[in-house]
Amino acid sequence: MASNRFGQLLTFTTWGESHGPAIGCVVDGMPAGVPLSEADIQPYLDRRKPGTSRFVTQRNESDTVRILSGVFEGQTTGHPVSLLINNEDARSKDYDAIKDQWRPGHADYTYDVKYGVRDHRGSGRASARETAMRVAAGALARKLIRSVVIRGAVVQIGPHKINREAFDWAEVENNSFWCPDKAMVPVWEQFLDDTRKAGSSAGAIVEIIASGVPAGLGEPVYGKLDAEIASAMMSINAVKAVEIGDGFALAATPGHEAADAMYKGRDGAAEFVTNHAGGVLGGISTGQDVVVRFAVKPTSSILTPRPSLDKHGNEVEVMTKGRHDPCVGIRAVPVGEAMLAFVLADQLLRARALGQKV
Amino acid sequence: MASNRFGQLLTFTTWGESHGPAIGCVVDGMPAGVPLSEADIQPYLDRRKPGTSRFVTQRNESDTVRILSGVFEGQTTGHPVSLLINNEDARSKDYDAIKDQWRPGHADYTYDVKYGVRDHRGSGRASARETAMRVAAGALARKLIRSVVIRGAVVQIGPHKINREAFDWAEVENNSFWCPDKAMVPVWEQFLDDTRKAGSSAGAIVEIIASGVPAGLGEPVYGKLDAEIASAMMSINAVKAVEIGDGFALAATPGHEAADAMYKGRDGAAEFVTNHAGGVLGGISTGQDVVVRFAVKPTSSILTPRPSLDKHGNEVEVMTKGRHDPCVGIRAVPVGEAMLAFVLADQLLRARALGQKV
Amino acid sequence: MASNRFGQLLTFTTWGESHGPAIGCVVDGMPAGVPLSEADIQPYLDRRKPGTSRFVTQRNESDTVRILSGVFEGQTTGHPVSLLINNEDARSKDYDAIKDQWRPGHADYTYDVKYGVRDHRGSGRASARETAMRVAAGALARKLIRSVVIRGAVVQIGPHKINREAFDWAEVENNSFWCPDKAMVPVWEQFLDDTRKAGSSAGAIVEIIASGVPAGLGEPVYGKLDAEIASAMMSINAVKAVEIGDGFALAATPGHEAADAMYKGRDGAAEFVTNHAGGVLGGISTGQDVVVRFAVKPTSSILTPRPSLDKHGNEVEVMTKGRHDPCVGIRAVPVGEAMLAFVLADQLLRARALGQKV
Amino acid sequence: MASNRFGQLLTFTTWGESHGPAIGCVVDGMPAGVPLSEADIQPYLDRRKPGTSRFVTQRNESDTVRILSGVFEGQTTGHPVSLLINNEDARSKDYDAIKDQWRPGHADYTYDVKYGVRDHRGSGRASARETAMRVAAGALARKLIRSVVIRGAVVQIGPHKINREAFDWAEVENNSFWCPDKAMVPVWEQFLDDTRKAGSSAGAIVEIIASGVPAGLGEPVYGKLDAEIASAMMSINAVKAVEIGDGFALAATPGHEAADAMYKGRDGAAEFVTNHAGGVLGGISTGQDVVVRFAVKPTSSILTPRPSLDKHGNEVEVMTKGRHDPCVGIRAVPVGEAMLAFVLADQLLRARALGQKV
Repeated sequence: MASNRFGQLLTFTTWGESHGPAIGCVVDGMPAGVPLSEADIQPYLDRRKPGTSRFVTQRNESDTVRILSGVFEGQTTGHPVSLLINNEDARSKDYDAIKDQWRPGHADYTYDVKYGVRDHRGSGRASARETAMRVAAGALARKLIRSVVIRGAVVQIGPHKINREAFDWAEVENNSFWCPDKAMVPVWEQFLDDTRKAGSSAGAIVEIIASGVPAGLGEPVYGKLDAEIASAMMSINAVKAVEIGDGFALAATPGHEAADAMYKGRDGAAEFVTNHAGGVLGGISTGQDVVVRFAVKPTSSILTPRPSLDKHGNEVEVMTKGRHDPCVGIRAVPVGEAMLAFVLADQLLRARALGQKV
Repeated sequence: MASNRFGQLLTFTTWGESHGPAIGCVVDGMPAGVPLSEADIQPYLDRRKPGTSRFVTQRNESDTVRILSGVFEGQTTGHPVSLLINNEDARSKDYDAIKDQWRPGHADYTYDVKYGVRDHRGSGRASARETAMRVAAGALARKLIRSVVIRGAVVQIGPHKINREAFDWAEVENNSFWCPDKAMVPVWEQFLDDTRKAGSSAGAIVEIIASGVPAGLGEPVYGKLDAEIASAMMSINAVKAVEIGDGFALAATPGHEAADAMYKGRDGAAEFVTNHAGGVLGGISTGQDVVVRFAVKPTSSILTPRPSLDKHGNEVEVMTKGRHDPCVGIRAVPVGEAMLAFVLADQLLRARALGQKV
Repeated sequence: MASNRFGQLLTFTTWGESHGPAIGCVVDGMPAGVPLSEADIQPYLDRRKPGTSRFVTQRNESDTVRILSGVFEGQTTGHPVSLLINNEDARSKDYDAIKDQWRPGHADYTYDVKYGVRDHRGSGRASARETAMRVAAGALARKLIRSVVIRGAVVQIGPHKINREAFDWAEVENNSFWCPDKAMVPVWEQFLDDTRKAGSSAGAIVEIIASGVPAGLGEPVYGKLDAEIASAMMSINAVKAVEIGDGFALAATPGHEAADAMYKGRDGAAEFVTNHAGGVLGGISTGQDVVVRFAVKPTSSILTPRPSLDKHGNEVEVMTKGRHDPCVGIRAVPVGEAMLAFVLADQLLRARALGQKV
Repeated sequence: MASNRFGQLLTFTTWGESHGPAIGCVVDGMPAGVPLSEADIQPYLDRRKPGTSRFVTQRNESDTVRILSGVFEGQTTGHPVSLLINNEDARSKDYDAIKDQWRPGHADYTYDVKYGVRDHRGSGRASARETAMRVAAGALARKLIRSVVIRGAVVQIGPHKINREAFDWAEVENNSFWCPDKAMVPVWEQFLDDTRKAGSSAGAIVEIIASGVPAGLGEPVYGKLDAEIASAMMSINAVKAVEIGDGFALAATPGHEAADAMYKGRDGAAEFVTNHAGGVLGGISTGQDVVVRFAVKPTSSILTPRPSLDKHGNEVEVMTKGRHDPCVGIRAVPVGEAMLAFVLADQLLRARALGQKV
């Protein structure tokens, strides 16, 4: 069924293949009267675009976005906003050799099983290129949650975790990795250079934090804020794990520590002593930071030959040339931010429908 | 908005509070001609029901399910199947003391912020009692995926992890914890007895495995099988983390190891050497075991007094009497199984819609 | 797929067969803090219930509704409201003779083709009994649109149309037909008595009007207010036509007459000279009365033998005993009102989500 | 909320304004392996495009469609198909005079009330130009229901109805009106010439018939085939009434005539004597022709000055220059066909999900 749409009230539908003429998305459900131009979107795309360092794919795309509808005289009209980015640097020939082969760890096999037809060029629809449109859609969502600050960082690459004591948001924009721990930057550089030379690739863990989220967003049972965040993050290419707040570590935390105590804060407002729950209780935001972490597996398109099959049933050694991110988790940071922004904006509209003052 | 429904083609909607007259669900989208009676559902409910050991809540519920519609002469008719369980042992008075208080780590605060009105009795709608109906709905889903075997186990309670070398499915039904490692059982017994005596509670990690899943289930991009599983599991009370296959560990796995190599198996079918991806590539099942793990935080209703607020803004010490699971993760096993069954059955129908032979 | 749910933000899911133990519905998406008890719902059910005159089915049902969830201390909690009505007077034996036969004009044939299994007793799920739960759900919807008055009337039975000059809402509650034209009442009495004696049945046209609808409800393109109303009404058993405002008559109206002129009304507000459009322009309410008419075909369960087939392929003469409405259009009045109320309430929540002050 | 998407399993989302750079749609849910190129879509667009006779708008658009995604080597891939048509002949200045005015009968007023912002150029999103993308999407739907023949005709313009005895499908393509009654053509020509000269416009009734529909499509209760058709047709610009089969006339038909009798046909298959029900019983197709009629009100953009208001609250006389269809019902024929095709294709996929052999 139709699975290329995300969101309930605020939605976006993406389309396009890695080596097709263009990629795009339609944002439907955007309220009217919101100032919007390409300049609101482009900076977010620039953060995700390829070729910005030697640690990401060298494909040369300007990722210049155009708004084709839904904006009039600088404001949204309440009608669908269609966004389009032309593909500029597709080199489909790089993929001829693996046209019929199934790269281990990639969607090649499952797409062939499911659809019979597969656009193998640059991985077609399974390419991380699709995530550009998530970032674009996220830029619109951010317009609806102006008081919320959403920031992301890479907290682990391969086996190398940051020192959380050294976490500094100011450092994140100063390096090629969105790394918040200055001392870790050279370690990752060395590690990724080695990984690339070895023809392999590396995984990563990304952390996204939303501050300033009003209490009361999210819905009980199956519309839980954390359930929607989990789905949003797990839908990003190569993501295999998601946790909220302390996540898996909560299994080992005693109940009397895990429950975040409350007290009367400034102005009498409810405040929390800790945030083990990651800003979500019963599926609804508490007003604390919403804290999300997700794991991105290593890129499966690698130069190291790996045993596999082709679609005719022959055993083959697969080696992917093309241009690939040695650690696709790096560029997942702006994508994760965008997805979190979208989930929050969508839930904000849903809260308003119920008459909540948010 | 309406957030009490789960699924796309095959759906269920649950309703009911912990201390209301009854709980129930409506399964809509069930194909016709499937043999069904209460006897198909009850055994799954019995696995989840309270009071089965000293390590779960002592509330005394038979959880006897009745089918009120959608079945005629022993077969489903294609119309909604309404299921109902009467609440038999509600002791609402236990909750009078905390009527206006916000238990730390519980949904009390967020429900009050969001709704203004809250049925505090036994946590109302936020009670894990809701999950009984998930188990019931899951029993119907299993009827549609007869070739799939879904099993669950607890792999960690508090800081105590099982020894994976000792994993034995045959042991799981032999103890009160769904523990697959015989040697771990006394450890957990001691740990939980100590925890209970200390007036605290414990978290857990649950693992659910589906074997016999046909390749080709799941949909790309936002309908990914793992995204839906993540949402399904994170929607279970107290769950804060979900991973598929090796999950977070994939961040530290080199790319040439992480990608599951393939070879020509018996009868020429595609086989995999390993299953780091947990049976899902590109959001679509590979035919391997689908492997899911999720973390359940410790029960937030505990006897240890904890600083908090009441809804009038007063600082209070909250202590929850009532009857609670010292480790709610234990009873999450049949719930996680049910949710995975439902996701798979729903995706099966969606695959059939596309003409897939599954 | 799941087709027993209606609505987008405010939804209800109905379940139950005519001769099963009960029928019910789950209203999901109801905002919190709305005063609600059975007494708010029962009067609407009483208007639809069988046995109120000789012109409707003689089945003896009290249609006593129970609220099983979602209400606490007299107020909605924001959680699903489960409603249940026990079936009290099922006489399934009446249907034994036509168990395997397909009544002409009924869903018997299509249900058998689609499902293979069919609960023939009292038409099972295809019975108009399902509409009781629409009326119940509509009573909840009305709570959300307190300023809107929704009224319905029968404007034609068989070939006999009311005189629109004589339309008087005060008359509607004074007769068994919801007839607004006093002079037409004896004509319909005679006509329906004759129809019944002849072993036949009669069709009708129902008109529903909502006054006090705020301008700005409805959404463009595929969420048009009139499109949702059309779907809502056409989903009622036996309905085969729907029109908004002047409807089909607009085909013959010249453009300069059809377009409703505007002027500055009291307090400077926009007012309309006429209401050919039935209160909806571009799919969005104008603030005028929303005017809907729909045609209900004659009951297909009649005493006159009619040529048909049974499910074994034999040609048979079908004659339906049971107890049936000679003109099912009469009891469609409260159902149509309920459906319109639900569409409006759902659109109200959707408008609020966009920040509209409605 | 997001209201620019149509369909459940097979969906399309349209975007674009009349005078924006382009219009487009995304078809999501299209099964893989369907041969598809622009040449499959263009002929349907050509039937709807403006400027084909003096009886439709004189705007000069080639309506050349481009496929931007979802097709590889001539086949659909199972991924979203993005379609785009550039706007070539927008003359926005024609609309400057009515920029702030509300044309009676148009969406101007309601859009301003709802959104505050309005793209007045050529009616922006409310333009019938949006329907081009419905036609394009319908072309894809037809690929999934190859055995179904869908045809449309205009059966009434203004007060002039065709003679149904003279109905001849072969005539439909021979005139500018999709008129199946040769004798009516000159009458409509004269009538529309007069209407245009008088600065007015005309309404119409369109009939769409689908032959070869398999029995068993459609779903009970709220997913009824006729309910979805009603919604589909009522969502078309200017449509105000929909009927299935005999529609409103069924109100006056006695029950023993209205119910379509059945007999054993060739090969023992069930056949029907008549088709008063328009091919749908209980919301599910019978295998007979699906017969739909809808009324299109006269174009509201006319040269005759009409009293109205502007958005500043002033009373004004509105006169629309621009280029408009004197009878927008004519071009509604291919649109109605497309919508019916889409509803049927979507229901076909849903039937397959249930295991039906259709």
